[in-house]
Amino acid sequence: MKKVRSRQLFMGKLDHGADLLEEISHVCRIEDIGLGRIEALGAVRKACIGYYDQKAREYRFMDLNRHLEITHLIGNISLKDGAPIVHAHITLADEKGNAYGGHLAPGTIVFACEFILETFDGPVFTRGLDHQTGLPLWTMSE
Amino acid sequence: MKKVRSRQLFMGKLDHGADLLEEISHVCRIEDIGLGRIEALGAVRKACIGYYDQKAREYRFMDLNRHLEITHLIGNISLKDGAPIVHAHITLADEKGNAYGGHLAPGTIVFACEFILETFDGPVFTRGLDHQTGLPLWTMSE
Amino acid sequence: MKKVRSRQLFMGKLDHGADLLEEISHVCRIEDIGLGRIEALGAVRKACIGYYDQKAREYRFMDLNRHLEITHLIGNISLKDGAPIVHAHITLADEKGNAYGGHLAPGTIVFACEFILETFDGPVFTRGLDHQTGLPLWTMSE
Repeated sequence: MKKVRSRQLFMGKLDHGADLLEEISHVCRIEDIGLGRIEALGAVRKACIGYYDQKAREYRFMDLNRHLEITHLIGNISLKDGAPIVHAHITLADEKGNAYGGHLAPGTIVFACEFILETFDGPVFTRGLDHQTGLPLWTMSE
Repeated sequence: MKKVRSRQLFMGKLDHGADLLEEISHVCRIEDIGLGRIEALGAVRKACIGYYDQKAREYRFMDLNRHLEITHLIGNISLKDGAPIVHAHITLADEKGNAYGGHLAPGTIVFACEFILETFDGPVFTRGLDHQTGLPLWTMSE
Repeated sequence: MKKVRSRQLFMGKLDHGADLLEEISHVCRIEDIGLGRIEALGAVRKACIGYYDQKAREYRFMDLNRHLEITHLIGNISLKDGAPIVHAHITLADEKGNAYGGHLAPGTIVFACEFILETFDGPVFTRGLDHQTGLPLWTMSE
């Protein structure tokens, strides 16, 4: 692990109808945020979540074509190929209260979403292929 | 989104038997906290959670009359009609590990609950009726 | 509740194959962290989670011998018998997106895990037996 420092804190909401992951990524690109964390709650019109198949070493994506509460979203921001990349996981709940979750993928559409975004100063965190897992993890050894 | 600044950080626990949402709201009122975030974990004696029906534009509340773990609570604090309002979502789990979640409503009774509350300085975040969703969202255009 | 101050912020990943709870606890011991919070996301090779039986006043532990996403981990760090103790709850999801959760126990094995750890300066938070719940809660009256 590496030491980082809190730089800026933002609170806001995402646009109704926006793609959740793409909207957060867009904010990071236009604000030039390459390191940080985000948390959010709200609701979606539909969701697309990923499960990483640890044997096949690939993501399997699921579409949940239903209106769902976002009981929680957590994510971090770092760099991949020189550009900000948001890695977020989401927990959702349906009209019976049953919870679902996974890796946040494009295709998750905002009904309403309130977030807190904290940016960090610190060393560069860059994602590169990790051979042990097949995932784009931080290359911490540098 | 708007820039905010961390002001104070609190760590503590809620009273056994307290109403989870009302207790957090009470703390915000007596400490005069109009902007911030809260996170918590613990257990409840029972829960009341809401699901927002996006078509009917109204919350449906469910009572879970069981002992449940709080696997996570996330919330933000802003103002509505001039008073602090806590908007929180909760994720719960039962004795089989199955997870549930939704919008935290009154009627969720604390068994044990440990929280971290961070207050912010910044612009006033006020909730007002959002016509697109029917929800009391932040009126960010001001 | 008591006032604390943010001291240091760390961002990092846990080793593939590590025991999730023991690894976080180990980091806290070697870095001498007695007060703070942690959040994480990732995936596990298997999980062991606890549900507190509020009547019998004891934890029941469940083994989930499957590959699961960590949709969220939240935890706090305080002291028990003079040493750092990590209290964390975890939310997980399987290949169908179904979510599970509970009290994080040893036996949860990391596939990949990215965390943010914030340490606090402040009063000593010590866990001691709480007679009302049977849990090792903070003895806040001191």
